[in-house]
Amino acid sequence: MIEIKPYIKNIPVYEAGKPVELAVREFGIAEDEVVKLASNENPLGTPPKAVEAIKKFANKAHLYPDDSMYRLKGKLANRFGVDDKNVIIGAGSDQVISFISHILLSEDKKILTSAVSFAMYDIYAKHHGAKVIKTKSYKHLSNEFIPLIKEHKPSIVYICTPNNPTGDATTKEEIYKIIEASYKSGAVAVVDGAYMEYASYLCSDYEINPKELIQKYPNVVYLGTFSKAYGLGGMRVGYGIASKELIEDMMRVRPPFNITTLSMEAAISALDDDEFIKQSLELHSKELIRYKEFAKESGLDYIESYTNFITYLMPNDLNSTDIYKYLFQRGVIVRDLASYGMNALRITVGTEKQNDKLFSVLSEAIK
Amino acid sequence: MIEIKPYIKNIPVYEAGKPVELAVREFGIAEDEVVKLASNENPLGTPPKAVEAIKKFANKAHLYPDDSMYRLKGKLANRFGVDDKNVIIGAGSDQVISFISHILLSEDKKILTSAVSFAMYDIYAKHHGAKVIKTKSYKHLSNEFIPLIKEHKPSIVYICTPNNPTGDATTKEEIYKIIEASYKSGAVAVVDGAYMEYASYLCSDYEINPKELIQKYPNVVYLGTFSKAYGLGGMRVGYGIASKELIEDMMRVRPPFNITTLSMEAAISALDDDEFIKQSLELHSKELIRYKEFAKESGLDYIESYTNFITYLMPNDLNSTDIYKYLFQRGVIVRDLASYGMNALRITVGTEKQNDKLFSVLSEAIK
Repeated sequence: MIEIKPYIKNIPVYEAGKPVELAVREFGIAEDEVVKLASNENPLGTPPKAVEAIKKFANKAHLYPDDSMYRLKGKLANRFGVDDKNVIIGAGSDQVISFISHILLSEDKKILTSAVSFAMYDIYAKHHGAKVIKTKSYKHLSNEFIPLIKEHKPSIVYICTPNNPTGDATTKEEIYKIIEASYKSGAVAVVDGAYMEYASYLCSDYEINPKELIQKYPNVVYLGTFSKAYGLGGMRVGYGIASKELIEDMMRVRPPFNITTLSMEAAISALDDDEFIKQSLELHSKELIRYKEFAKESGLDYIESYTNFITYLMPNDLNSTDIYKYLFQRGVIVRDLASYGMNALRITVGTEKQNDKLFSVLSEAIK
Repeated sequence: MIEIKPYIKNIPVYEAGKPVELAVREFGIAEDEVVKLASNENPLGTPPKAVEAIKKFANKAHLYPDDSMYRLKGKLANRFGVDDKNVIIGAGSDQVISFISHILLSEDKKILTSAVSFAMYDIYAKHHGAKVIKTKSYKHLSNEFIPLIKEHKPSIVYICTPNNPTGDATTKEEIYKIIEASYKSGAVAVVDGAYMEYASYLCSDYEINPKELIQKYPNVVYLGTFSKAYGLGGMRVGYGIASKELIEDMMRVRPPFNITTLSMEAAISALDDDEFIKQSLELHSKELIRYKEFAKESGLDYIESYTNFITYLMPNDLNSTDIYKYLFQRGVIVRDLASYGMNALRITVGTEKQNDKLFSVLSEAIK
């Protein structure tokens, strides 16, 4: 009798169906007419310099990547003004979450997150049988977090800023209060800045500086990713910035060659593609205004966004799942937040044309 | 005080230095003169059809891969005559080892491997604090494995065939005896066929059929990879084939999007590149003969190889580490097996030109 660890059996198996594009095609919509605003991918595409690097190294795909990752780490260290021993590379920042979960969590441990935040915090906690404690609101409020830190003594406290899937950001002052309380309690505080490039651009009040963070606190892991502003969602590259001690402990559970040869080259090149990042942020801030205007004109509430998506709150007489389905059948794919306990839709801010289509179909759906 | 799980602290941190090519350049050797026969990469390079696919999809690198992976799973299922619910995809077969370790191992569990085998079995066991039991010889002998299975009741029994880093293969009869004993003892038997394409081509006696395996035994996970014969070491794609129940349990700990968008396309295309695989296997079998001849002419012993590398055993008056260094300083990189307790070198069979250089430098080294 094979003995699977009992808590593993409690992890739900995610039953991925066919790709959404295929499902949409079942409604007779051509592939190039599908508008996917569901995964917060960069609507401007892949950075041209990264495309170039991928093509250049395509015939080196048989060679294992340099596992020291010293060029990529060096470039990131340089950008953030830290030492390369303060940097760990993950297959998405996602994998860095799995590392910190692995070294800290077990069945008698807990994590603390806001009521609505990135789903992988919970999932990786469950991979180790740990318990998930949540605050009451989706906002990261120190007066909600601190009493729960004192009560539950979590091993990890997650601060997602700007927050996914809600889009709001947390001030540095609030974040530092939560980290301080985490520190006193022996918890690692993870500051997940996956969408930080957008927050920094939209409002510098919400910018978090990883160097300052790790200089002030030995218990912080800052997370960044190439999947959003850097336009490399499909390449699976993210990073953690932390004290040398925490990085070293995470390195103990890092699998070798954890990003691909082409992912490494693409990420290095994307860091040089300032023009692409600038264009992405400019387009985004312009189109985000249209999303706010559309909401006001349509009488929809929304959460103020500091990310590349916006969360529309549905009025009581409308159901987000119905609206989601209505859009889906017309080839517009967004994210329904019903499974997060919210009557809301998360919509990636796309290109002007994609957004036009969204506005047009959503208008019909809610009228 | 941050509480890292105690057994995690026992995992050694692998201190990767600068890439070997850089180190070699310190000896004044130009990059294109370095001959790397250390990582068992395909010397013919990346399959042309995969290169084409990578270039074609380079500008889709901002899009997350289809997480159902239904095209790749379907193609593999079709090839092996199994259902796609019998297939799991990993970032290298390496990651499938991490999944099976994760769902079965904890501090009170054990694994069983041959004395010298793939290093990641031990490392992933240590990631969960499990104990590693080893047989006396590097060969997979049922009369060594079965008593240890009875004595230790391991949770996982690893059968690497052909074996890495020794190159020898195990007969189906022996393997089935070990699996049978594992089954009776409640252990999962992992049959790692990372180099199986070479064994099948060189001697069909050593071919293992995953379909037959999983039809006969509910406790088997067969591993395959795109990193060796399929020429995609840098893309990190491997797979596991097992009963639907075991696949489902491994899926519980699979991170989403665990291979890149380009890795998926490259692997799908590589499966269609029959011409490349044929050329790779033909070149290999021709060059492998030269390695055996060289050994005989030079008075070196070797382990009969069914993989894309060969293990030369050094005579008592020579030290493998000295020879390794001698080669390294002349731009020829091989793998020293001293850390495995063997006075031996593992050498990837390269192109004719690469092998010429190896023979020439090794002749000097051992004379």
